[in-house]
Amino acid sequence: MATTVSPVSETCLTAKRAARALARADTAVKDAALEAIATALGVRLGEILAANERDLELAHEAGIGAALLDRLRLDELRVAGIALAVRQIAALADPVGEVIDGHRLPNGLDIRKVRVPLGVVAVVYEARPNVTIDAAALCLKSGNAIVLRGSSTAMHSNAALAQIAAEAAVGAGLPEGCVSLVAGGGREELAELATQQGVVDLIIPRGGESLKEALQAVATVPVIYAASGNCHVYVDGSADLDSAEAIVLNAKTQRPGVCNAAETLLVHERIAGELLPRVLRSLADAGVLVRGDERTLAIAAELGASAQGSIARIEPVDEEDWGREYLAPIIAIGVVDSVEQAIEHVGRYGSGHSEAIVTRDTAAARAFQLGVDAACVYVNASTRFTDGGEFGMGAEIGNSTQKLHARGPIGLRELCTFKYLIEGDGHVRA
Amino acid sequence: MATTVSPVSETCLTAKRAARALARADTAVKDAALEAIATALGVRLGEILAANERDLELAHEAGIGAALLDRLRLDELRVAGIALAVRQIAALADPVGEVIDGHRLPNGLDIRKVRVPLGVVAVVYEARPNVTIDAAALCLKSGNAIVLRGSSTAMHSNAALAQIAAEAAVGAGLPEGCVSLVAGGGREELAELATQQGVVDLIIPRGGESLKEALQAVATVPVIYAASGNCHVYVDGSADLDSAEAIVLNAKTQRPGVCNAAETLLVHERIAGELLPRVLRSLADAGVLVRGDERTLAIAAELGASAQGSIARIEPVDEEDWGREYLAPIIAIGVVDSVEQAIEHVGRYGSGHSEAIVTRDTAAARAFQLGVDAACVYVNASTRFTDGGEFGMGAEIGNSTQKLHARGPIGLRELCTFKYLIEGDGHVRA
Repeated sequence: MATTVSPVSETCLTAKRAARALARADTAVKDAALEAIATALGVRLGEILAANERDLELAHEAGIGAALLDRLRLDELRVAGIALAVRQIAALADPVGEVIDGHRLPNGLDIRKVRVPLGVVAVVYEARPNVTIDAAALCLKSGNAIVLRGSSTAMHSNAALAQIAAEAAVGAGLPEGCVSLVAGGGREELAELATQQGVVDLIIPRGGESLKEALQAVATVPVIYAASGNCHVYVDGSADLDSAEAIVLNAKTQRPGVCNAAETLLVHERIAGELLPRVLRSLADAGVLVRGDERTLAIAAELGASAQGSIARIEPVDEEDWGREYLAPIIAIGVVDSVEQAIEHVGRYGSGHSEAIVTRDTAAARAFQLGVDAACVYVNASTRFTDGGEFGMGAEIGNSTQKLHARGPIGLRELCTFKYLIEGDGHVRA
Repeated sequence: MATTVSPVSETCLTAKRAARALARADTAVKDAALEAIATALGVRLGEILAANERDLELAHEAGIGAALLDRLRLDELRVAGIALAVRQIAALADPVGEVIDGHRLPNGLDIRKVRVPLGVVAVVYEARPNVTIDAAALCLKSGNAIVLRGSSTAMHSNAALAQIAAEAAVGAGLPEGCVSLVAGGGREELAELATQQGVVDLIIPRGGESLKEALQAVATVPVIYAASGNCHVYVDGSADLDSAEAIVLNAKTQRPGVCNAAETLLVHERIAGELLPRVLRSLADAGVLVRGDERTLAIAAELGASAQGSIARIEPVDEEDWGREYLAPIIAIGVVDSVEQAIEHVGRYGSGHSEAIVTRDTAAARAFQLGVDAACVYVNASTRFTDGGEFGMGAEIGNSTQKLHARGPIGLRELCTFKYLIEGDGHVRA
């Protein structure tokens, strides 16, 4: 009697078979597959743009907003950018086979801890179709089969991109099923994907809070949730004011919509009177709305009296603001009495993503680095550096604020697990 | 208006506060605390034995079986053994502060990846009261606060041990709340503990399948499930037969009730006729029941005709047996045609714990190590070595067959996460 297998679980089982072969694929073969994908993106540009055109038309008819339409849109330049990213991933070191640790045990057994692929990685993502290729390239390079599940908005674009990637990879010698796309964009398919225990080894969601909540409710396979970042810059009493101002501006305004942008500035009371007038003016010039605590408002008021209007956009901060990830040109500002108070504030409201201290005092720097519990703790640098590329890890598939397995950028190594290889000559346990 | 906080969440919040201080505790202070615990176990032996006596009486009244009673029982020798284990943990290297990786980025930023404690670790365990102290010592040494939740059967013993540990640790300078025990042993307390998101950083269950299932149904905080081990020994066609026989016997019989004992023997057809008669006799002598496939039964039948009775306990294996973790003197035996077939069998039925090949052939050894997806893959050694102590990691809190974060023995390092420390001199992102 034939068993009925759903399309989602069939896709995952095929991916599992592919994963076994992929785990043993040579780096040269994997790199050739990535090069083939990059080339195919150019050769088959017409197909990609035609598929994208259909998504854009449907999205337009559905009355989808301009920002989302722009994220959905592909053109020759963007596709070339995607291909370039694939070639950059090919150029990274292969994490598979790296010996992480190893030694000879007292009984003569040799033990090595060696990095190996996870197996099948599922990536669940929203509008941007470039994720289809980025995620596939990262998974293939790290020896994992990938099961993609995009949004229905980008259905045609994702299908074209996934097909091109799969054909190119298989053509270059990787196993059938190494890249696949789950067709339906519905919650039912998501639930099915998220419960493939023993088949799917990891799910990475790339999307908003509603996607995370939907996964949290149903997932039985391991999930690494991408970060939300409520990042702080703390300017210590001993800080160089020019550095402090530059770092605050950079952390808040260089790209406010990303998770490593700062949402709160904390200033030591000793320099608040000197620093805040400068910072409030610069933030105002950059179009940033300030939500200040009492001491900040008082300084702003004095300043307002002397320099009319230039710091107009300031309002009182409330308790909830401290915990907010604005992802917008808004910053909360508070004055603290000590580095300890800053650490406590960060501990209470931070999301464990990226935290910075600006200081010239070694004791304060050390206290902050030891006392703040976050993926990345900066001394005299902007929080904006938290990024796989900046960290020298190459491209990242996301950024984790969880503490288990991956913390910070999720790059090729974080898409791997390890195994212990133990060699003896007839060793038995006494 | 006062908020009502339940005893479980209050305990966890106190542990969280303790964890902040513990993360910064010097190794010397942590080691002194462990020494104080070990000493207190001796000094307060009377209390411990009195509490244990109450548990034993209640267990006896409740008609609990002899095996469980024995696991529950403490005496002077066993308490001395627990104290010795604490001192051995104190003697291990402190994982906190280890620099895992580090380099200077092209822009001059210095980045270090440094091991730090997870924070609050909850350990949920069944009858054996020694876990109270073992788990507390491992968590304190790795800078974590521990919340213990034992079974109601060992209620009084656990309470006495936890109190002694907590008082000794605090007396030696560790923060209040670094060791605590959740009073109720009910499912409600378990559910509450398992949903302390943002407070409890990890739950480790140490117990049977029903405990795991109960956790899986409710947990929202990360859980590392201890392993079930369906381990295999594969004897290749080129194996040294003496080695093979010794390894099979050791893996099956040295301690059959543990997760790294072998449950299945696979033998290459080329040597089955020579090896199996020897192994079947040795297994029979050791009192092991064999479940054999057709070829094994045929060899046994021939043997039976020539050497009456010595291999009497043999019966046919069925499909389900291949997937079974006996934890008993029973072994499934099958004959395979190649190393590839052995790898496939292990891939289908194994639990990813510990797998061994016995061979003199480098190609077979390499194929097995690359092709088998398990925490530990052995060449010419018994599966019984999978153990934190044997691996030179010191004591372990369990053994993981999952792929994320911890795979294999869960020792001090696995009770840690890491953070990136980044230092610059005013660096901003361009």
